[in-house]
Amino acid sequence: MATVAIDLHGGDFGPSLLIPACFQFFREQPSHQGILVGDLKQFRSVVQHCPSNIDWLDKPALGDAAKRPARLLKRQANSSIESCFELVKQGQADVLVSAEHTGVLLVLTTKYGQVHPFLKRPALVSAIPTVKEPCLMLDLGASYTAKTAQLLAFSAIGTSLASAIKQKPSLALLNVGVEAFKGPIELQRAAEQLANWKDIDFKGYVEACDIYSGDYDIVICDGFSGNHVIKSAEGSMALSSQLLSDRLNQNYLNKFLGLWFKKQMKAALKPLDPANYNGAVVAGSDLAVVKSHGNARSKAFNSALVKALALCQQQSVVAIQQKLDQVANDQKGVITG
Amino acid sequence: MATVAIDLHGGDFGPSLLIPACFQFFREQPSHQGILVGDLKQFRSVVQHCPSNIDWLDKPALGDAAKRPARLLKRQANSSIESCFELVKQGQADVLVSAEHTGVLLVLTTKYGQVHPFLKRPALVSAIPTVKEPCLMLDLGASYTAKTAQLLAFSAIGTSLASAIKQKPSLALLNVGVEAFKGPIELQRAAEQLANWKDIDFKGYVEACDIYSGDYDIVICDGFSGNHVIKSAEGSMALSSQLLSDRLNQNYLNKFLGLWFKKQMKAALKPLDPANYNGAVVAGSDLAVVKSHGNARSKAFNSALVKALALCQQQSVVAIQQKLDQVANDQKGVITG
Repeated sequence: MATVAIDLHGGDFGPSLLIPACFQFFREQPSHQGILVGDLKQFRSVVQHCPSNIDWLDKPALGDAAKRPARLLKRQANSSIESCFELVKQGQADVLVSAEHTGVLLVLTTKYGQVHPFLKRPALVSAIPTVKEPCLMLDLGASYTAKTAQLLAFSAIGTSLASAIKQKPSLALLNVGVEAFKGPIELQRAAEQLANWKDIDFKGYVEACDIYSGDYDIVICDGFSGNHVIKSAEGSMALSSQLLSDRLNQNYLNKFLGLWFKKQMKAALKPLDPANYNGAVVAGSDLAVVKSHGNARSKAFNSALVKALALCQQQSVVAIQQKLDQVANDQKGVITG
Repeated sequence: MATVAIDLHGGDFGPSLLIPACFQFFREQPSHQGILVGDLKQFRSVVQHCPSNIDWLDKPALGDAAKRPARLLKRQANSSIESCFELVKQGQADVLVSAEHTGVLLVLTTKYGQVHPFLKRPALVSAIPTVKEPCLMLDLGASYTAKTAQLLAFSAIGTSLASAIKQKPSLALLNVGVEAFKGPIELQRAAEQLANWKDIDFKGYVEACDIYSGDYDIVICDGFSGNHVIKSAEGSMALSSQLLSDRLNQNYLNKFLGLWFKKQMKAALKPLDPANYNGAVVAGSDLAVVKSHGNARSKAFNSALVKALALCQQQSVVAIQQKLDQVANDQKGVITG
């Protein structure tokens, strides 16, 4: 049995959308417990329809002015999101789910948790769709560049998470080419180290165009690069959809056949639906934290809750810490950039 | 009248594809001159059908073993690509076009040209498709991270190139969010400086998903990020095409209507055809160098030749040097990261 603390604020939709999603999820998961944290006066009327495995905690939303991450460290910790962190820290919840901004979650993970000393800051891990199985990609957070040690720490996190699903997962480093001499020296040094890891199938470098092939279970990069990869995919697919949609609205025949086609397209692109992949893990501390996308609706929020349960069931936080311990120990005395 | 030196080697196809493309181009451009540089014994038979405004220079292909860029600086400079650089350096050609690897072209630009001292190394600039007009993006080359001064140098290059087409072009810095406090400090400092530039409409930060909106004439980034943006777009669009194509081949009705649809799709996505955008500028030295994509076929190679002529006609090399002089001068005494 796991207890999930859910921040009802943060994200674009708030309690009115998240509460029904949580009700449905915990009705279907009667052996697990939810604690819904938010501004109770906004939704007092719905509390009475609540499944018995949900508790409530009345806490105000984090003000917009407080979202500049550095300020969070100096504030009174009374908001819904900080209360979720308190619950997990004190062991009253096993994991928290929030749609707050990444920066806020990273700062609070550092404030309330113990980030593994081999990591500079927590890393953000997400699954991305491919032609075959989804691929785990990290860091998608605030590491603007990555030194060799950080790349190895990200690899440790990715390996721990992927190993829960697949033995000896394949791992590659994101680079601008696959030749050994390509890319920054920090990346080259990380590649030399990773070639010796026994628990992964190290594939060397991968270019951003080949991530989607499904040939890699884990792709490692700095957060700046990872962010660009994901957002560029999103933007370019939206561009091609728009061009296509304009074309299909050009005349009556196109409009008529376009209806049929849009149905086909929807079915074909279902595997890419971001709602299936919602729920990024804020990894590398002793707290289990799942970030939902800010624009997640019910189905997507459900995916984030599923991810939170899996994190508990697979004991991922402990597995990640152990793998980070091992890599940190192996790296002692190795000169890295 | 411009003289264009063309490296017939480099790239995936070589002389047998490039020679007919050049013949056609120079027949249509009788006031310009071409010098085709390559291993003459391979194509002696076609020389006789050559338009009168094409000359030939017999030089061997650059061996594969020599493509590791650092080695190029130590070698005998007798290959077709190095001869093209010699021609431009000595003023016998105004611009060169080659499908050689980026690394090779960057190294040779440094070897034969004078890179502006405000730049660390030449930058690679390419146009990318958007919903509206194409957007100029740089660096797409070998700058794995970029300091403030480099970002300003890239901005100077982009501004010079875009100003030849549009007065006061809009410019944005690629970042992981649009808020002023986001991203590395080098980027934040560049943003502070760019806000004072009078010849651009500075738009602040742009996320990779919004490049394709067409709201930005120039997007500035380090080469590592730029590479990921372009390749991720390529890979994700290929993924969605494949899923769609699989769906349309599922049954006879789908196959039949699929034929109609593929025709529509081809027409709709024509503005995104990479062949229209081929021809990246290796900018920032006193030499005019255009890189064609390694897999460019006739139509795409033609785009690169058109780009080479435009570079000469717009006197871009001089304009870029002048803008770099001005920015370097403005930056004297300004503390930047």
